[in-house]
Amino acid sequence: MTVGTERALGAHRVLEPRGVLPQAALRLDADPAIGPDEVRIAVQRLNLDAASFRQLTEACGGDGAAVRSAVLSIVRTRGKMQNPVTGSGGMLIGVVDAVGESSPLGLAVGDRVATLVSLTLTPLRITDDLAGWDGRSEQVPAEGTAILFARSIAAVLPGDLPDAVSLAVLDVCGAPAATARVVQRTGARSVVVLGAAGKSGCLSLAAARAAGATTLTGLVRDDREAVALAAAGLADRVVVADATDPLAVAAAVREPAEATIVCVDVPGAEHGAILATADGGTVVFFSMATSFAQAALGAEGMAADVTMLVGNGYTPGHAAMALELYRSNAGVRALIDPRVHA
Amino acid sequence: MTVGTERALGAHRVLEPRGVLPQAALRLDADPAIGPDEVRIAVQRLNLDAASFRQLTEACGGDGAAVRSAVLSIVRTRGKMQNPVTGSGGMLIGVVDAVGESSPLGLAVGDRVATLVSLTLTPLRITDDLAGWDGRSEQVPAEGTAILFARSIAAVLPGDLPDAVSLAVLDVCGAPAATARVVQRTGARSVVVLGAAGKSGCLSLAAARAAGATTLTGLVRDDREAVALAAAGLADRVVVADATDPLAVAAAVREPAEATIVCVDVPGAEHGAILATADGGTVVFFSMATSFAQAALGAEGMAADVTMLVGNGYTPGHAAMALELYRSNAGVRALIDPRVHA
Repeated sequence: MTVGTERALGAHRVLEPRGVLPQAALRLDADPAIGPDEVRIAVQRLNLDAASFRQLTEACGGDGAAVRSAVLSIVRTRGKMQNPVTGSGGMLIGVVDAVGESSPLGLAVGDRVATLVSLTLTPLRITDDLAGWDGRSEQVPAEGTAILFARSIAAVLPGDLPDAVSLAVLDVCGAPAATARVVQRTGARSVVVLGAAGKSGCLSLAAARAAGATTLTGLVRDDREAVALAAAGLADRVVVADATDPLAVAAAVREPAEATIVCVDVPGAEHGAILATADGGTVVFFSMATSFAQAALGAEGMAADVTMLVGNGYTPGHAAMALELYRSNAGVRALIDPRVHA
Repeated sequence: MTVGTERALGAHRVLEPRGVLPQAALRLDADPAIGPDEVRIAVQRLNLDAASFRQLTEACGGDGAAVRSAVLSIVRTRGKMQNPVTGSGGMLIGVVDAVGESSPLGLAVGDRVATLVSLTLTPLRITDDLAGWDGRSEQVPAEGTAILFARSIAAVLPGDLPDAVSLAVLDVCGAPAATARVVQRTGARSVVVLGAAGKSGCLSLAAARAAGATTLTGLVRDDREAVALAAAGLADRVVVADATDPLAVAAAVREPAEATIVCVDVPGAEHGAILATADGGTVVFFSMATSFAQAALGAEGMAADVTMLVGNGYTPGHAAMALELYRSNAGVRALIDPRVHA
């Protein structure tokens, strides 16, 4: 591996421990002075990962001011927004304000962009103490600077959608792209989505349908979500169950599916997802709260011949696909719009 | 889901918390009295999961007596051998000593068997205080009882191999079966195995070759392992690198592979595995030390278009395949035999 590749991945910004890549680092150098292959973003808004925001909110007893302090403390200490408990981050929106002469990203000063690499590896400095945020929403108005490396990914924000909508959709754009790929590659026709009324869940349902799936089941946690999902028309069947109760999930789903997509943001959904999947089928875990050991040992312990995928947030074309699903599908809009705090 | 299915999965043996399956339970009921669909095994030997044994050994500062006490304490407290830190367990060998009248497993009293479901979900009672074990080996002579459910899996031990060999091979039999399936399904010709000189690593190399892979790279941690792996003739190329140093892994592998199999038993191998894999390729994580978040966010952060699989310990036919690879392949035997404490 050449020095160029190390730099492209941001290894030169790692302060501690030396030798790891930025995502695994404890601390990054968030200095706003950029190298020739870097890009600096003037930050406007952070979108915290759902699992991270939930953990922080619970740890702070729902006190928004305490959540804000916790986020500020993490960013100051680590030089990036990576929740030390969940390990997850989120993404951000901003304006390009400096482009190194050899940056390969194709960005220009003034472009409004969303970063599609995780906040867990993005050098970040906050300069406004998050004064415009009440700590009660995943979307965080913020001022400061973020750094992109040569091998980062950023999407120029579409002009036809509000920023908050673009950010909310792009934040989960890996899920529908990977769902579509699994449906296409495996030929799955029956698909179950756990957490189907959420952002990644409803986009995954729409993506599965567009990719050729014909029998879609959406599992949600309560009647309120069930009513909303049924009204959106994205699933052929809507069922209510606690995704962390494997026997309840299996009972609700009844007929195991060829593919199961896990979009809930709480721990403990692994076994229910496995039981919801037919022998020979595929489970895609998109929840950052997924436990590797629970998934691996659960499938073995239940003698379940299922293929289990770690949801990869990157699939070529994922941003454009997710935005197009939002634009073209009223049901997706009906579920996502109420979650967007514009 | 019927009551019958819940029973088949062992839900009736869960003491705490109620409603979960045995693998997720804090405590199981290890009462040796069996139900009509259960089987009782008279335990002879446990084989601890490598990640679990390593963690216990390190936590006890290498003191074998302390490791033994720790294992006894876990089994007494939990009614199963599940390391609370790693979440992993292992497997066991014993003799069938009672078969419920409606057990579907096809076992008879007197059969010598290995359980192929994890110890993390197997009700276990130890009656000899592990007096015959010095705490310095993953293979643990033990007396006591274990319970199989209707949907458990056990393999009758082959008559032509020593027990310790069968146990060592069956313990990791999911890895070669899954490797073979990935090579067959994806058509991968180039395969990298991280931790290639270990049990699951060498079996995975042999399985990849048998499934049609033509360019095999084995990555090992030091020169001693490199010499052994080269002598075994299982890989076309043997390279030495720290699997937890992603840049070192990428430099050693040089040409990214179509499939990468992770068989190391230490945390932190996720990013190296991703960098070792070509765009469009597949990573299979067999290490129980794998972090879901590190894998998911690492791939996203490096814009790596790779499919990542959670290694499933169960694939139909996995036990017979692994034993046959051992019997038919002198290189596999040369690497596994020294690890077996007969």
